[in-house]
Amino acid sequence: MILEKIKSDGLAHLSYFLGSGSEAAVIDPRRDIEAYLDLARRNGMRIVHIFETHRNEDLVSGAPALASVTGAKIWHGPNPAEPIVYADTARQGDGFAFGDARIEVLETPGHTDDSLSYALHDSSYDDGAVGVFTGDALFVGDVGRTDFYPDRKREVAGLLFDSLRKILSLGDQAILYPAHGAGSVCGSGMADREFSTLGHERANNPRLRIEDREAFIDAKVAEHHYQPPYFRLMEQLNAEGGGRSPRDLLPPPVGPEALYDLGGAQLVDVRGVADFAGAHVPGAYCIPSDMIAAFAGWFLDADRDIVLVARDADQAAGSTRTLARIGYDRVVGYHAGIVPVATKDRAFASVPLVDTQAVNERVDQRADRWTLLDVRSVDEFEAGHVEGAQHAYVGELPSAAESLAKNAPVTVMCGSGARASIAASILLQTGWTDVDVYLGSMKAWKAGGYRTIEGR
Amino acid sequence: MILEKIKSDGLAHLSYFLGSGSEAAVIDPRRDIEAYLDLARRNGMRIVHIFETHRNEDLVSGAPALASVTGAKIWHGPNPAEPIVYADTARQGDGFAFGDARIEVLETPGHTDDSLSYALHDSSYDDGAVGVFTGDALFVGDVGRTDFYPDRKREVAGLLFDSLRKILSLGDQAILYPAHGAGSVCGSGMADREFSTLGHERANNPRLRIEDREAFIDAKVAEHHYQPPYFRLMEQLNAEGGGRSPRDLLPPPVGPEALYDLGGAQLVDVRGVADFAGAHVPGAYCIPSDMIAAFAGWFLDADRDIVLVARDADQAAGSTRTLARIGYDRVVGYHAGIVPVATKDRAFASVPLVDTQAVNERVDQRADRWTLLDVRSVDEFEAGHVEGAQHAYVGELPSAAESLAKNAPVTVMCGSGARASIAASILLQTGWTDVDVYLGSMKAWKAGGYRTIEGR
Amino acid sequence: MILEKIKSDGLAHLSYFLGSGSEAAVIDPRRDIEAYLDLARRNGMRIVHIFETHRNEDLVSGAPALASVTGAKIWHGPNPAEPIVYADTARQGDGFAFGDARIEVLETPGHTDDSLSYALHDSSYDDGAVGVFTGDALFVGDVGRTDFYPDRKREVAGLLFDSLRKILSLGDQAILYPAHGAGSVCGSGMADREFSTLGHERANNPRLRIEDREAFIDAKVAEHHYQPPYFRLMEQLNAEGGGRSPRDLLPPPVGPEALYDLGGAQLVDVRGVADFAGAHVPGAYCIPSDMIAAFAGWFLDADRDIVLVARDADQAAGSTRTLARIGYDRVVGYHAGIVPVATKDRAFASVPLVDTQAVNERVDQRADRWTLLDVRSVDEFEAGHVEGAQHAYVGELPSAAESLAKNAPVTVMCGSGARASIAASILLQTGWTDVDVYLGSMKAWKAGGYRTIEGR
Amino acid sequence: MILEKIKSDGLAHLSYFLGSGSEAAVIDPRRDIEAYLDLARRNGMRIVHIFETHRNEDLVSGAPALASVTGAKIWHGPNPAEPIVYADTARQGDGFAFGDARIEVLETPGHTDDSLSYALHDSSYDDGAVGVFTGDALFVGDVGRTDFYPDRKREVAGLLFDSLRKILSLGDQAILYPAHGAGSVCGSGMADREFSTLGHERANNPRLRIEDREAFIDAKVAEHHYQPPYFRLMEQLNAEGGGRSPRDLLPPPVGPEALYDLGGAQLVDVRGVADFAGAHVPGAYCIPSDMIAAFAGWFLDADRDIVLVARDADQAAGSTRTLARIGYDRVVGYHAGIVPVATKDRAFASVPLVDTQAVNERVDQRADRWTLLDVRSVDEFEAGHVEGAQHAYVGELPSAAESLAKNAPVTVMCGSGARASIAASILLQTGWTDVDVYLGSMKAWKAGGYRTIEGR
Repeated sequence: MILEKIKSDGLAHLSYFLGSGSEAAVIDPRRDIEAYLDLARRNGMRIVHIFETHRNEDLVSGAPALASVTGAKIWHGPNPAEPIVYADTARQGDGFAFGDARIEVLETPGHTDDSLSYALHDSSYDDGAVGVFTGDALFVGDVGRTDFYPDRKREVAGLLFDSLRKILSLGDQAILYPAHGAGSVCGSGMADREFSTLGHERANNPRLRIEDREAFIDAKVAEHHYQPPYFRLMEQLNAEGGGRSPRDLLPPPVGPEALYDLGGAQLVDVRGVADFAGAHVPGAYCIPSDMIAAFAGWFLDADRDIVLVARDADQAAGSTRTLARIGYDRVVGYHAGIVPVATKDRAFASVPLVDTQAVNERVDQRADRWTLLDVRSVDEFEAGHVEGAQHAYVGELPSAAESLAKNAPVTVMCGSGARASIAASILLQTGWTDVDVYLGSMKAWKAGGYRTIEGR
Repeated sequence: MILEKIKSDGLAHLSYFLGSGSEAAVIDPRRDIEAYLDLARRNGMRIVHIFETHRNEDLVSGAPALASVTGAKIWHGPNPAEPIVYADTARQGDGFAFGDARIEVLETPGHTDDSLSYALHDSSYDDGAVGVFTGDALFVGDVGRTDFYPDRKREVAGLLFDSLRKILSLGDQAILYPAHGAGSVCGSGMADREFSTLGHERANNPRLRIEDREAFIDAKVAEHHYQPPYFRLMEQLNAEGGGRSPRDLLPPPVGPEALYDLGGAQLVDVRGVADFAGAHVPGAYCIPSDMIAAFAGWFLDADRDIVLVARDADQAAGSTRTLARIGYDRVVGYHAGIVPVATKDRAFASVPLVDTQAVNERVDQRADRWTLLDVRSVDEFEAGHVEGAQHAYVGELPSAAESLAKNAPVTVMCGSGARASIAASILLQTGWTDVDVYLGSMKAWKAGGYRTIEGR
Repeated sequence: MILEKIKSDGLAHLSYFLGSGSEAAVIDPRRDIEAYLDLARRNGMRIVHIFETHRNEDLVSGAPALASVTGAKIWHGPNPAEPIVYADTARQGDGFAFGDARIEVLETPGHTDDSLSYALHDSSYDDGAVGVFTGDALFVGDVGRTDFYPDRKREVAGLLFDSLRKILSLGDQAILYPAHGAGSVCGSGMADREFSTLGHERANNPRLRIEDREAFIDAKVAEHHYQPPYFRLMEQLNAEGGGRSPRDLLPPPVGPEALYDLGGAQLVDVRGVADFAGAHVPGAYCIPSDMIAAFAGWFLDADRDIVLVARDADQAAGSTRTLARIGYDRVVGYHAGIVPVATKDRAFASVPLVDTQAVNERVDQRADRWTLLDVRSVDEFEAGHVEGAQHAYVGELPSAAESLAKNAPVTVMCGSGARASIAASILLQTGWTDVDVYLGSMKAWKAGGYRTIEGR
Repeated sequence: MILEKIKSDGLAHLSYFLGSGSEAAVIDPRRDIEAYLDLARRNGMRIVHIFETHRNEDLVSGAPALASVTGAKIWHGPNPAEPIVYADTARQGDGFAFGDARIEVLETPGHTDDSLSYALHDSSYDDGAVGVFTGDALFVGDVGRTDFYPDRKREVAGLLFDSLRKILSLGDQAILYPAHGAGSVCGSGMADREFSTLGHERANNPRLRIEDREAFIDAKVAEHHYQPPYFRLMEQLNAEGGGRSPRDLLPPPVGPEALYDLGGAQLVDVRGVADFAGAHVPGAYCIPSDMIAAFAGWFLDADRDIVLVARDADQAAGSTRTLARIGYDRVVGYHAGIVPVATKDRAFASVPLVDTQAVNERVDQRADRWTLLDVRSVDEFEAGHVEGAQHAYVGELPSAAESLAKNAPVTVMCGSGARASIAASILLQTGWTDVDVYLGSMKAWKAGGYRTIEGR
């Protein structure tokens, strides 16, 4: 019996290939399904089952595409928000056997109404589950978010409490196989560690250690989560059934002139924070390639073309794949580097990067009309910020920053300077003119030993 | 915290890369250390600890080579059979911390006197061990062999019993990270599944379920294990410190004539069972590439050159790497395919492959002077064999077959026909002339519904 | 200016990627177009031209697929046998410029009526062509075959003579870029060397050295070429426009039972000569993976499913790609190896491989009823064969062997034993029962110093 | 016969693998010899000859390493400046045959006294050479530089003239295989095209078209070439015999703190122009990874350690390989990215990038005390520069810029902004404080339609 974890960077999405004998199952496939096909065929296995733990809101499911190529059946939980047209319904107690593997279904609502967990048994060593696929119900160090039903906040948090007890009843020995690792937008408190068991979570997971149902519900409803607008598109695609990823992931190259004559396309600079600061095409979004999964869905329109500025072909191809995973298939071209733009005498812009000393001086001077804009999540902001900083979450810019004067100087900060660079590009697009970025941001501020303020 | 399992096919040897923050440890490295270096450097980590669970008898340790490249320290248990000149001694209760990871040492003798297990803790989630590296003490579905101290059989089996209890005391939640998976020569009863926990083993592992110490000892001393001669070389190299793998793993090509003028070199045909049967160079060993790890050590002399007959360059390179892992560095050339040999009008030989029907007819006819030679392990033979078959373990040929007449016809069988092909090549080298191989062997016999005999 | 040769093994088909500045052209693309897309995008170039030298009869053109992905225009010569619906017509003297590259069209009929050559100029170094793409008109060491218009044999041979003079008029300095290298079915006398110039060909190419037009025509019409039946399919696809290669080239694995319950599928064993001889599934075609391009088109039906027996997944994937290149897209599964078949107690068969000594003895004994069947081309046969051998070209079996008695013993030979193995599998499929293969064949016969007979 | 060109990017160094039958030769190998070994072994060939065209001054020869691994003999020309201790001497008329290939030696001094060319013949098509390896005597579009013997300028230019005539006498049909392509430091006028023949060069190469010997000499001695200081090291290594490249090309990662506590190591930022401008560690050299081959040898000391700042592990590994090719083996660590530096509150610096408009305004204003420093080669400068610009070649900084005031503002320009960024990093290291870079530089200036001045 083999079990391979397939991790999608950026999203921190985890899917699993489980094979035994000549058959295999995939749990929560992504839409670029080559990894599963390859594992199956190289191990001499046919994929016969596809198990979805819930309707994903943060990525396009590859279940329909994988079923189409392999003929496998897709299983999904009952009570989805919208009918899952491509799947059959699996219910509490259903079982699926192949080789020595046996999957048993647990209904574990809470994160969503249709959430399932799948316990894994080895029929040759059958005393107790050897593992459990928990989807977004239970993570390493955290539990699923419960903010998707605003009218039923306490109810669904209570459902999750009950589901978690049901999962724990499988026993301490069961290995935990969640749908996300650290870095996901689906939970804020996940451990940095990528492996655990129910026993280790029972003893260490802060949410699981709340033994009182009401206290658990109180804690969950007090959490703050953000929902990027592209979640709507994902939910729709994952009910109707999204297609397979584009076959050719490297878009065609375009010349510098194409970056200035976009014809409605969105220009996204994926090179990185320092490159963007050094020189970029005016009007471009700054979304470094490793931040696409978490942030592109806040800003980009899936119905419009996308042109990338990347360092090189590899980065363009990787960014295109990541965009495809979250439903953006319209990458129509890429341009490598900024020097060719400049040599054509095309306009370029820079964003000054400032350091702790500079920010501290401005704070000390209570610089007139100057704003220090902190674009981290509200939870991070409240846990400690620079005195006088204003808060607006990067994803909610520019509307959230509307109260600021566009013609006054603004320094943007976040945890390290990365989200601040995204935010700076948004501000520059929408009328701000005097924007710089605090490189190092809160980590540097703390490393420098400066004082932070808690609360709003 | 990341934990990557590095599996060496054939040997089914498992080593581990454990990283947290900017530092990492490697548990039981093999001598082709590129995989560890690559993981470390790509994750921005330095390898600072190398942990050995025991002196390996079945492969060359990469600890000295890895330490030489990285500057890491090597830790080894007390009481080795010979001094481990390259390592420091770790003892019960010693602890090693890096990033969030903390390793705690358990002395777990039994398989060898110097066996250690290493419990893994996450200092951010510190209630109980999250995993344990058990070396050859505990596997998925089996426990370590205890046949290396013939004079102290019962004592060391008892030590292993105690060590296993010590390991289990870490709790059901701890994930099991053993040094071997199914297919290893270090245990015969391992599960086909590659992942487990202490809790799942406690409930399912047949040896762990023996709760009585004396009963456990009885069971262990009743086991039969084979010790290939190359174990001696490994033990010596792993005390003195073996070097890194050769840099260039693809040996130079040689022409057909070189296969007939070996000058003392050993000729090993790694192509596969059917290729060898079809046509091969007379005198060659048949050791298919995926069987090298398990069987080359029975027959080959590490102090003599080796020439390979392979299908192609990839197979030659893979075979050379596998040979290097078990201490055979003197692969001086390879030849691709058998057709070029024949076109030079060089002699080639074939081995007839016979099927169940043919074997059954000969059995029925009690064919005079004909021998059916079963080369499986004695345990397999006793669990069920064809009536009238003679037994000699493949590794112990040809001496074990000396009682057979070289000029009488012999059909060799095993479980599938693979070990039988190796055995046939040994017989042909040493004077037998009328040898064929039962392709399918015991599996086919059983699939055909024929009767088997238990016992000797 | 960059020029990359893309070689398709087996077919020995050569296509070219030519880029200058930000634009590129592809000459004679194959249908797995990833190599061209990748070259273009990594070099920051857009493919704007696709040049076809003629309607290929031996592989599926990738021009329509490449045009569809890139938007490039496709250029083809005038006078095709059937309208090329996807292409525009290029004529003598037409020119195409991109970057420093300039392509000038030469009409060079003979091999086909629509054959074009494309002279390459560098506008920065413009005195004389730097190279010429000659399609199937001129190869290294040979010229194109002229057997496709049986009613116009002398006419088209004369056209080719004139076309070659036109090509040579570009000057000795022009580098030769033909559409095939050694090993192609499109010419029998190609040099083993893969690079040449017009000057070197003018001095050395045996056909170019015939200065008299009539003598050239006489030589060409005296040639013998074979036309595999799949040529018809290629011609049709390459007029209508074949699609892109299948996206997933590794077919799903199938179990042993599927090889015995084919439901109309064709079973093709691609493992190799020695494997097939050792053991194979009865009824399978033996077509080793490196011989698919040259021989599958003689035997396989593109409208029926194909199941492969391969050594491993890599060989199955490579074979599937090669089959796709010649229009066989219906590979529905593969099985790895023959041992799993035998262990299920399924029937398997062997083909004895015999050596020179055995063949010579039979020849000497003028063995009664025994046939030595030579399946090489008629040209090879007439250049020298074993006395008493009968001739039938492998591609024309079994009909060509109908005069032989199916119940009499037959030994098949060719140049090395490879084509003979294919032939043996055909004979076994169609009723012959006593078939063996002379491994080494004519090369071994000659290496052994035995006598050959010229002529029929 | 196969001939593969192996190109080393950056250096634009070309080496060749030539194989025929079962043997092969390598012409001018680099010291990371894996490419040659792999080609040989995969093609079933042994490398038996290594041909050097001359003692390379710009890279470490891999001939000694390749000979050591393969047992091949090394051939080098007569009259080297220092004895080539690892090579045998080849002379005019010497011949070497393997398979169908035959190499004939031509003594072609001029670039160096020991320069050889090697004519390639195919013994099966033997009328005239099919190609010629010309080393640094003849390139596509240019001829070798003749500035290495300052006391014998006219003599060696004359020798080169004679050598070129000798090469041309091989005939128009011979394909040209030079030791460098466009981008090399070994010739300034090479064509962008990577393929040519003697005939095409005879007609188009500007230097070859000078038919008068004295006129050719005049032209050559009027050329200006730069000799980076590392040439001395190369010359020494290539007489004594440099070792093989380091086995592990990815250096270990180091933390931010290591960049500020270098202990004598040289800090090289290889990320790129825009990254460096955005933020970098003060004191670092800016040498983008694709410029290492051409510029690292001007600034770095091979006897001191090197620490890299790279974007990621791949870029660090590639840069380490390039450094090894030019003799810098002491890369002891790399750090990925600049954000981790800033988050530790470590100091970082930026370099403003300015555009054409800004530069033009300063020029118009004849800005007081402001310097526009053009760091291109003197040839480029004289062909056209901005009025008022001062010239100092990037390689000769900072000494060449000593006449400038360190406390006055300076804008650095080159062709595109790349060399200017290198230059800016040198100036900043050595006391300048007010430095910016004209991104786009002369290409942008011309694209903007601004006026340039010829001459000094």
